[in-house]
Amino acid sequence: MTQIGIYGANGRMGRMIELCLREETEAKLAMLYDKGGNLDQLFEKSEVIIDFSSPLGTSELIAYARTTPKPLVIGTTGLDEKTMQTLHQASEVMPIFYATNMSLGVAVLNHLATKASAMLKEFDIEILEMHHRHKKDSPSGTAMTLATGVAKARNLELSKVRISGRDGLIGERSKDEIAVMSLRGGDIVGRHTVGFYEEGEFLELNHTATSRATFAKGAIKIAKWLHKKEAGLYSINDFLGI
Amino acid sequence: MTQIGIYGANGRMGRMIELCLREETEAKLAMLYDKGGNLDQLFEKSEVIIDFSSPLGTSELIAYARTTPKPLVIGTTGLDEKTMQTLHQASEVMPIFYATNMSLGVAVLNHLATKASAMLKEFDIEILEMHHRHKKDSPSGTAMTLATGVAKARNLELSKVRISGRDGLIGERSKDEIAVMSLRGGDIVGRHTVGFYEEGEFLELNHTATSRATFAKGAIKIAKWLHKKEAGLYSINDFLGI
Amino acid sequence: MTQIGIYGANGRMGRMIELCLREETEAKLAMLYDKGGNLDQLFEKSEVIIDFSSPLGTSELIAYARTTPKPLVIGTTGLDEKTMQTLHQASEVMPIFYATNMSLGVAVLNHLATKASAMLKEFDIEILEMHHRHKKDSPSGTAMTLATGVAKARNLELSKVRISGRDGLIGERSKDEIAVMSLRGGDIVGRHTVGFYEEGEFLELNHTATSRATFAKGAIKIAKWLHKKEAGLYSINDFLGI
Amino acid sequence: MTQIGIYGANGRMGRMIELCLREETEAKLAMLYDKGGNLDQLFEKSEVIIDFSSPLGTSELIAYARTTPKPLVIGTTGLDEKTMQTLHQASEVMPIFYATNMSLGVAVLNHLATKASAMLKEFDIEILEMHHRHKKDSPSGTAMTLATGVAKARNLELSKVRISGRDGLIGERSKDEIAVMSLRGGDIVGRHTVGFYEEGEFLELNHTATSRATFAKGAIKIAKWLHKKEAGLYSINDFLGI
Repeated sequence: MTQIGIYGANGRMGRMIELCLREETEAKLAMLYDKGGNLDQLFEKSEVIIDFSSPLGTSELIAYARTTPKPLVIGTTGLDEKTMQTLHQASEVMPIFYATNMSLGVAVLNHLATKASAMLKEFDIEILEMHHRHKKDSPSGTAMTLATGVAKARNLELSKVRISGRDGLIGERSKDEIAVMSLRGGDIVGRHTVGFYEEGEFLELNHTATSRATFAKGAIKIAKWLHKKEAGLYSINDFLGI
Repeated sequence: MTQIGIYGANGRMGRMIELCLREETEAKLAMLYDKGGNLDQLFEKSEVIIDFSSPLGTSELIAYARTTPKPLVIGTTGLDEKTMQTLHQASEVMPIFYATNMSLGVAVLNHLATKASAMLKEFDIEILEMHHRHKKDSPSGTAMTLATGVAKARNLELSKVRISGRDGLIGERSKDEIAVMSLRGGDIVGRHTVGFYEEGEFLELNHTATSRATFAKGAIKIAKWLHKKEAGLYSINDFLGI
Repeated sequence: MTQIGIYGANGRMGRMIELCLREETEAKLAMLYDKGGNLDQLFEKSEVIIDFSSPLGTSELIAYARTTPKPLVIGTTGLDEKTMQTLHQASEVMPIFYATNMSLGVAVLNHLATKASAMLKEFDIEILEMHHRHKKDSPSGTAMTLATGVAKARNLELSKVRISGRDGLIGERSKDEIAVMSLRGGDIVGRHTVGFYEEGEFLELNHTATSRATFAKGAIKIAKWLHKKEAGLYSINDFLGI
Repeated sequence: MTQIGIYGANGRMGRMIELCLREETEAKLAMLYDKGGNLDQLFEKSEVIIDFSSPLGTSELIAYARTTPKPLVIGTTGLDEKTMQTLHQASEVMPIFYATNMSLGVAVLNHLATKASAMLKEFDIEILEMHHRHKKDSPSGTAMTLATGVAKARNLELSKVRISGRDGLIGERSKDEIAVMSLRGGDIVGRHTVGFYEEGEFLELNHTATSRATFAKGAIKIAKWLHKKEAGLYSINDFLGI
């Protein structure tokens, strides 16, 4: 029974993880923590800490953990260079898992799309993502991660080949361009399709999240796995063994 | 056996129609005509004339036909106001069919999407089209027709609500906006999807052309049908009886 | 503020409707009723009653309502001939809405698919549905309704043309056959696609439910609408005005 | 300029390869051969021979080649155990490529689906294929290859877990079953989707052939590559370097 502490417990993801922990048989909620709470107690009671807070919150968490090592599962987005450095250093004395999308399916899609990009070098790549009407930024972070991966597999720099819209008499598609198009509407949790198109055939790899709980459940699975690991920085590929 | 003349016979569509006519059992090629050919002979030999030429070519065809009425199937794109007026006038003395997409499936999609738009007023609308890597303009004419139809069904003016890309921190989707997104790649003949998205459910209506011959075959079916019609201006909805 | 009573309140749908009513601003929960409850009170307190119970439950509800007319929204599946007759008779003295799927999107899909079937008579029809791994029956009731509709639009009797699987050297597809195929897996709430396939093009109409609340929300919308109606039997097409 | 001979030149695939060779800049038609032709001449003129004939034809080709080694690209389906053994033996003295589907995209799909099956062991697998209305057998050979691959990645024997239809009150989906469903209609060249479904998310990997020429072009690409290889038996994975 892994004792799990939630750091950033009042956030949307924090509450979702709390909810999902109730249905767990191999893990248990150790303690909820949010700003102004008792950090000493959180570290005492928890065997693993899951953090979906803010860049500042994560930075404070790591600072504390460096003196009191504890396995950390970090899903906070928007960390700056400096926090990432501290995170690397801290991982020398404790196991730290870091990923901005904890869905296993998305990790697998990323892995497969990168492989396909390298194997099908003559195929045109187009990426499509769709999210609910309330999402404020485009494209999604996951779409950008996918695009970066498939570009890199062809030695392309995404910033030089990415396109986010097409309008007017723009001429034929260039070989290397990669469109990353964003649809918005309804309550779509998240759909991502990476397409590879050639004369005579095409391949489309799609991931669809059907519930927001997916990401919370992913984080819990990872926490149970990280619990017994040695110090080091882990990614979702380590978790999947790829 | 309907005798069909092809006006603009050297163009891509003209040649495709010639090819498709060879497999017809109820229609037959009467004569091929292109610039510099014998127009008198074309009108003599043909019971119906199919025209996929150019705005100028179509304008000349109509001028000639006004003195020698003959059923005309016109698929030329980019006709200006004045030619459209002449076309209307000419249709008082002969049956004229005019459409920029002669695929029956696209016509049905347009009809259904407009219906759905009116019935599902609270649903967000997003349109996606995909064509081969050589297409030079975006979005496709068909996508624009679809978008105009669904906008009109909600008393919206497309030019005020159309979006052709999303990039950056652009905020939540507004209720009325309609994205018309264009993907390009491989040898895709034509895919159009009109999507309607709401809390809890969505509807996606898709048309896919699997062969360029679709449009040529559509024109031939229409020619056989137009042959026996009275004078008047006909659209693809008349052909479908909707 | 429409006062809504829930009959069959302990069932899965009953509880979902209770949950969705909490977020309503124009309707309110009047009373929960299940077996052994106080039926007199339910009828006194409610302006409309929503019923997702059992065939026996629905039959008892109608019997009671005949002496105390009240607008009824009935979504119970599996009603026999006799109950349907009683329902018809009862609708002479009160407004009764009856449908086995209260999603607006599904109703629209049904309407559009039937239209397309009639307009595209030469196109082959194939229906695909997918639901979660726990669903016990195949095909879904909604898929059967869709199949019945498209078959009828071509004067076909579904039982004579329906196919539920293909395996082995079965020969070419016959013109009239309609496959209704069922996929099962994960937690898919409900996906239905009606496809129309011809040489050169195809049309695919898809509805996807993204949340089980869809059906509960549909029932509440309908209850608010039925509240002010005259006696009569109403279907989802009446609600949509089609 | 690779000199390519076609064995089984009058078959559908033979003729398609002949057509595609005309557009090649790095390969050239050496000679067409069909039953009753001059086999000595075929072997003299060709640097590589592509064979899409019949099991008997292939067996005769291999017998001849054992005395006159030549690179062979074999795409004939339905070879029996004995012919497969001869093929293995012959590959000790010449390079032989053997595959029943020469589309690169299908090979990549097969590779990716097998990987995903192993990485996502808790996800339900469902396979869907669609082909034109004239196809006589179900499921397609490619769908069976895909199904065999994903089953094997989980130590399952396909024949024990495959399902080809669902109808009636069949109960909940069992963990290991794999549905391989076949849709038929229009002129669809070939669509294959391998889906992985779990609580909260799903992954769908799709390959679509847009032209029958895909397979012919694949065979030609492979012939050019095989030309310089050492003796040995090669598969499409060798060609893709995976």
